This record gives sequence, structure tokens and C-alpha cells, in this order.
Amino acid sequence: MNEVIKQMEAHRSIRSYTDQAVSDQQVEAITRAARWASTSNHVQSYTVIVIKDSEKKRILAELTGGQSWVEQCPVFFVICVDYTRQKYASEKHQMSFDVGGAEQLLVGAVDAALVAQNMQLAAESLGLGGVMIGGIRNHPDQVSDLLGLPDFVFPLVGLTVGHPDQLVGQKPRLPQTAVVHYEGYNADHVNEIEQYDQEMEQYYHMRTNGARQTSWTALMATYTETRKRPHMDAYLKNKGFLQAD
Amino acid sequence: MNEVIKQMEAHRSIRSYTDQAVSDQQVEAITRAARWASTSNHVQSYTVIVIKDSEKKRILAELTGGQSWVEQCPVFFVICVDYTRQKYASEKHQMSFDVGGAEQLLVGAVDAALVAQNMQLAAESLGLGGVMIGGIRNHPDQVSDLLGLPDFVFPLVGLTVGHPDQLVGQKPRLPQTAVVHYEGYNADHVNEIEQYDQEMEQYYHMRTNGARQTSWTALMATYTETRKRPHMDAYLKNKGFLQAD
Repeated sequence: MNEVIKQMEAHRSIRSYTDQAVSDQQVEAITRAARWASTSNHVQSYTVIVIKDSEKKRILAELTGGQSWVEQCPVFFVICVDYTRQKYASEKHQMSFDVGGAEQLLVGAVDAALVAQNMQLAAESLGLGGVMIGGIRNHPDQVSDLLGLPDFVFPLVGLTVGHPDQLVGQKPRLPQTAVVHYEGYNADHVNEIEQYDQEMEQYYHMRTNGARQTSWTALMATYTETRKRPHMDAYLKNKGFLQAD
Repeated sequence: MNEVIKQMEAHRSIRSYTDQAVSDQQVEAITRAARWASTSNHVQSYTVIVIKDSEKKRILAELTGGQSWVEQCPVFFVICVDYTRQKYASEKHQMSFDVGGAEQLLVGAVDAALVAQNMQLAAESLGLGGVMIGGIRNHPDQVSDLLGLPDFVFPLVGLTVGHPDQLVGQKPRLPQTAVVHYEGYNADHVNEIEQYDQEMEQYYHMRTNGARQTSWTALMATYTETRKRPHMDAYLKNKGFLQAD
């Protein structure tokens, strides 16, 4: 198999880093490569914020739920959805501006996520490692204040990057037959999920020497039991998204 | 620079393909590699539908806005956001289930987009090419009927894949200084946008032998002038997303 596919299949989330710095050249290479991701209607509705400042990383570690690796990593990226350039374009050409539908949220999230995936893979290809941080949406108002995010911009996902200081096994993924369907949706994937449940039970058992006894469906049922980050609706509305018709 | 970064920087959207088939092994390799993308809380809230059937591709080409390459490509992928496995987990463990917030839409879109980016890059690394199709959201109800998508599943983005039958130049991206900011948001990117506007004017002029005279900001102002795909809000609500508190 080729180097690109090998790199994808070697992915692990890395949460501990050596003291070695990530160079400006590496940050540049990572972001330069990532920019070539596809983009919807060429909107490129994202902005990447690069954070090396220790105090900012310390605050962001708190705001993302006490994730110490956000502080420890030499460089932390905040990948934002950003429509300010479209706002500027609308003003320049004296046209109205509407990004208030669910569609624009999806376009922004997809554009930014495509870039984020390229960034993580590019970093890994340079021998670096990291983990994506959804916790950046725990306190989006405070993150926005800290980073000076204007209207029509919000933090979608964080990404830690550093030189790996841990060896971790790969976390098993859902069976391919569960997530890849042919010619139409296959609603009959109970067997695959049950099989995966056993695999994940063994995985947690092995990784924690028996301390953690849980299954994937148990974790998932808890995850969707109540609405997660319910503040996001009001936050996004306040930022100019999800407006009434 | 390494092979992974080289591959990212070589990205072009390909809309014409030779008659050569994409093998089952290639489809397998693409989706197997993509599954290792990061996922929020390990939800893996996506499903990929692989479509080779000519009649289905013909209908999807119509539904995506008359994009002939959707019909012409040997294999078309529909990457969906999918929470049915979490629904199953909730029922199994007799717990309530709520994916009705904007947060869950973002998590699903990010998870699915990370996989989509890996898929496109994996395909390109195999000498294949394609283009992402946001038009899959033009008529999401009809796409859902055609592919049998249940509640808590929606088509996020399409991806054509085939053996390239065209040589195309790269479409310039926004300057790196416009989309990569340091230590905080830099709202002052007018100069970069104006510079990019000129670059894109020249690009369109060159590619069309002068037939197309437009700029990026002119296209963007038109893009956001009215709400795009306004049906998405009602469609998503009907599928179980974006519910009231």
C-alpha cells in the first residue's frame, strides 16, 4: 500500500508530547498543505488560529474541560468556521448577506473539517502527533473573547500538535461493513454493532488492566442521553448563524 | 517534502473520467483507510454509501443539479451523517436519545467530513480523481428516498471517483496569511482578499480565454446574497435534527 494510505491507517490520538518545539516551518508546511482541501463553491469558509503562547494554551486547556494536553502541546490550532470574508465581499459589492440557514452551518463545518483532517494527517506525516479537541465548543463565548472572534466566526475544533511522547495502541473502529453500504442504506447492522461491542469491551479491559468495564453501546447511550453542549444553539444564533427564515 | 504532503498539494477537482472501472479492491482500500480519521467521542457518526449502479447515478446526477460527472464516474460515494447506531445503543440500554441540538449537527458534519477528506486523498494517492458534490443537498428528500435513508441520517456530501480523463490546473486558494492567523483572530485581511481577487480574476480569464470576467468577491457576494438551500432546515428537522429545546 502507498505512503498516504499507510499514514492514514497509522492514525492514533496522541495526548503527551516531548519538550521539543514544533518549528515555524512545520506549522507553515502543515497549514500550507491543508489549504488544498476541497471547498464548497470555493468559499473556503474557515480560519486556522495558531497558538503557541503558554498563557493562552493554559486558559484553553481549562476552557476545553481540563485537557492538560492542550496546555502541554507546543502548538495548538483552533480551526474556525469563518464567513467574514463573504461578509466583506457582500459589502464591497453592495449586496445583501445571509448565512442564517442550517445549510451554511454545514458548509462551514465541512470546509473547516476537511482542512482539519489534512492538517492532522500532514502533521503525522512529519512525525508529529496530536488529538482533535471538540471541547473547544465547551465554552465558545470565552474562547471567542480570548481569541477575538468576530461575528460569523466560531471555533469548530481544536488540534494539538507535538512530538509524541507516548506509544498508544489504535482504538478499534466500527466494522467496515457497518459504515460502508452498497447501492443504498443497509439498516440491518445489529450484528456488526454487537460484534463491535465485544471488541470494544475487550479493548477497554486490556487498556486498563480490567479497571474499565464498558461497551461502545453503553458509552454511546450515555453520550446521547441528554443534549450535549445545549448552549451551542444560542451561541451560534448570537454569532449570526441559525437565524429565523 | 514527503509523499503525504505532496499528495495534498497536488489536489485538483476532476470532473471527467476514462471508461476504466474502479475496482472493488480500490473502493475497499479507500474506505478502509478513511475510517481511521478522528471521531468525536468515538461516535463515528457517518455512513458511506457506495454507488456503481448506472440508473442510480443517472438519477443522482439530476438530483445534484445536472452534474454529468456524477453519472459518468465509475463510482459515486454519498457520505452521510448517521446517528442510527447511537439510537440503537439508546434503545438497547433503555435510555433517552437526543441529537436535536446544533452541536449534534456539527459533530456529525465534522465526523463525516474528516472521513470524506481521507477518502478523497486516498483515492488520489491511488491515481484516481474526483470532486466533492455539495449538490447532494439540493434535493435531500429525494436522495433519502432513493437511498433508503432512515431518520437520524442525512446526505452530507457526495464524492465522484474515477480515472482522470482531464488535465486541470489548480484553482488558487486564499493566501495563507488570510486563513492562518497567529495567537488570535486577525480581522485585518482586506489586502489579502484584494490581492486574491486579482489573482482569481486572472485565473478565470486564463481558463476561459477571456470569456469569464469575474472576481472571487463578486462570486462570494452572489453566493451569500440569499439563503442557499433554505429547505435544509425543514429537511433536517424532519430527520430528527434541530429540534426545539
